[in-house]
Amino acid sequence: MPDKRTIITLTTDFGTADYFVPAMKGVILSINPSVELVDLSHQIPAHDIYTAAFTLMCCYRDFPRNTIHLVVVDPGVGSSRRPIMVMTDNYNFIGPDNGVFSYIYQQQTVNRVVRFKEEHYFRQPVSNTFHGRDVFASCAAYVSKLVDWRMMGEEVSDPVRFNAPAPVVVSPKQIKGTVIHVDRFGNLITNITANELNESMSRAGVRVKVGNHEAARLLTHFAEANQNELFAYFGSAGFLELAVPRNSAARMVEGRRGVEVEVTTS
Amino acid sequence: MPDKRTIITLTTDFGTADYFVPAMKGVILSINPSVELVDLSHQIPAHDIYTAAFTLMCCYRDFPRNTIHLVVVDPGVGSSRRPIMVMTDNYNFIGPDNGVFSYIYQQQTVNRVVRFKEEHYFRQPVSNTFHGRDVFASCAAYVSKLVDWRMMGEEVSDPVRFNAPAPVVVSPKQIKGTVIHVDRFGNLITNITANELNESMSRAGVRVKVGNHEAARLLTHFAEANQNELFAYFGSAGFLELAVPRNSAARMVEGRRGVEVEVTTS
Amino acid sequence: MPDKRTIITLTTDFGTADYFVPAMKGVILSINPSVELVDLSHQIPAHDIYTAAFTLMCCYRDFPRNTIHLVVVDPGVGSSRRPIMVMTDNYNFIGPDNGVFSYIYQQQTVNRVVRFKEEHYFRQPVSNTFHGRDVFASCAAYVSKLVDWRMMGEEVSDPVRFNAPAPVVVSPKQIKGTVIHVDRFGNLITNITANELNESMSRAGVRVKVGNHEAARLLTHFAEANQNELFAYFGSAGFLELAVPRNSAARMVEGRRGVEVEVTTS
Repeated sequence: MPDKRTIITLTTDFGTADYFVPAMKGVILSINPSVELVDLSHQIPAHDIYTAAFTLMCCYRDFPRNTIHLVVVDPGVGSSRRPIMVMTDNYNFIGPDNGVFSYIYQQQTVNRVVRFKEEHYFRQPVSNTFHGRDVFASCAAYVSKLVDWRMMGEEVSDPVRFNAPAPVVVSPKQIKGTVIHVDRFGNLITNITANELNESMSRAGVRVKVGNHEAARLLTHFAEANQNELFAYFGSAGFLELAVPRNSAARMVEGRRGVEVEVTTS
Repeated sequence: MPDKRTIITLTTDFGTADYFVPAMKGVILSINPSVELVDLSHQIPAHDIYTAAFTLMCCYRDFPRNTIHLVVVDPGVGSSRRPIMVMTDNYNFIGPDNGVFSYIYQQQTVNRVVRFKEEHYFRQPVSNTFHGRDVFASCAAYVSKLVDWRMMGEEVSDPVRFNAPAPVVVSPKQIKGTVIHVDRFGNLITNITANELNESMSRAGVRVKVGNHEAARLLTHFAEANQNELFAYFGSAGFLELAVPRNSAARMVEGRRGVEVEVTTS
Repeated sequence: MPDKRTIITLTTDFGTADYFVPAMKGVILSINPSVELVDLSHQIPAHDIYTAAFTLMCCYRDFPRNTIHLVVVDPGVGSSRRPIMVMTDNYNFIGPDNGVFSYIYQQQTVNRVVRFKEEHYFRQPVSNTFHGRDVFASCAAYVSKLVDWRMMGEEVSDPVRFNAPAPVVVSPKQIKGTVIHVDRFGNLITNITANELNESMSRAGVRVKVGNHEAARLLTHFAEANQNELFAYFGSAGFLELAVPRNSAARMVEGRRGVEVEVTTS
């Protein structure tokens, strides 16, 4: 029997002004009225699959088992890109096959990737520009009703993934990484985690260089930082971040996604 | 017995920063805790009943039968404009009688329009500036509890409607229409549907003129368009739209609501 | 037995673009899947506890009894500021002990203020920068499951409060007050209520001075105001407000929070 409170989260670049998001919700609730909808974000910059992938990565694990994560950031709508579902032990991820689930492939054991094909599970007629409503929302609703994936499509073996830049441990005293996201407070999130930055480095004290600027301290609390001090810390998503108290690090150091970061210890 | 998951959608020009929308939701949930609330849009431009009417029109049918669509875009709050409910076979629409339901009158068989009068169903005291909370939200919650409309008000026969500009079929080779909405991607939505643009025109190929610009092709997929090409297509709301791939057609052709559009075939 | 539809409202300065709000919701729903989440506002200006306190004050009473109001505007995250719960007969308020509940202390009979201490009820590991997820959301979810507060922490007697400026009745013909909030329409909300502005004043007619500008009339309906007229009225939150029809009073009179207002009668 279907769980009466299966959660579907929604991540899109549609914003919340237009009819796009409520149309998706209406379609889902028409198919499965007992589903629980949670907005993950609708403010993904238009067509920005990297920010969508990052945002999803930072919170999908906070949701209960069996949650369906629906992501519609879909610059290729109407082209031949495939509508897919990535099935793991704990979650199902539904969206376009454009790399938006790249971090999921890295982090989770994927049981299978399914391409939705069976038009019976699509909203009819399928428009050429709004698969978020006609394909993805509709299929997510049927999945939440425990329709077997074999009824809805077929397994595929070659889902699209982008290569997220990996941090490089150059030496026991040097790590090179990359800014992978800038949040709304202007904090710079890098791809460096506690796995790269070993304990002996942390104990010895590190400096983090970004462009011509340098964070001289790795702190554990924002409150320890001085006014206008660029400092490093491990953020709530598990990554090494750079911030300035009550200010924008991104503006101060001209930081943006893709900028290199270097961690050294003396 | 009331459906435990009756849906109430909310459309307002209140934004999501202030206490206005949560106050409405609190009032509704205090009266009927088992209702399901879905935000349709709170980003309607202030007092813009045309955008509210358009946004509602594009997705109200995606919601399950018996959904209550609550619309509070109410420039005349505190004046003598009437609070009404438009009852159709599938939906109830609740809001101010200012034309915001004009498309509903065009598209649905209206069983009756009710003016809410009975103060018992209002939140007390009724403020002069926030009928969204004190009248509309409160009445919507009682309607969701299946209170009979005869208890709440009286039928009216002359609801306010605006005249949505209708497309004109000038000849078998020419249609004149109007831009009725601009979405956040800058796509121009016209009032021309597949009903006006007959199949022989589509087959022969059409040109769509807007101002000094012209879309030379009617495409079915965004992916077919060239870079910076202004093109026409039937959008997800059923209307002929004009777009430029990954760019703003509105900016490119100085398009806005009310601008004339001409479709011709050779 | 826990109420199956206990409501938790969420007020933050996180915005809706990033993963912060859905992470909190995921944590809550993982602990108590039957809770009902309602966004109060996520557009509180960053670190602005005054706007958070005002926004909460204007609508917390519209929610049903037993609602949990969760407020995470937390400039001191990671410092020693305490995570607290303010318990009243009707509601529980959960957030940082930084003054954000100052109006609650004024308006409600507080049964007790509890400091959360027991790490068992926190999400592990507790990050230094995101107590919204790791402490507040988690504790709110356990409170919604009716965990006894004595299991979660200990009573405190000295919660932080800011001194909201109080209106001063200078004479039977003069009141001095302060602008405490500016809403998105540019209306100026003062701290003066009908309690200060007695009936004889209202009958005699009042003038409201703000800076070099003056509202010459206290109206009951927006529709009575003339074009570009600055006028006064009692707003939907119970406070004396200043507005200009379809325009921004804040822009017209250079009004902002903290500006003095003087009400006089002749």
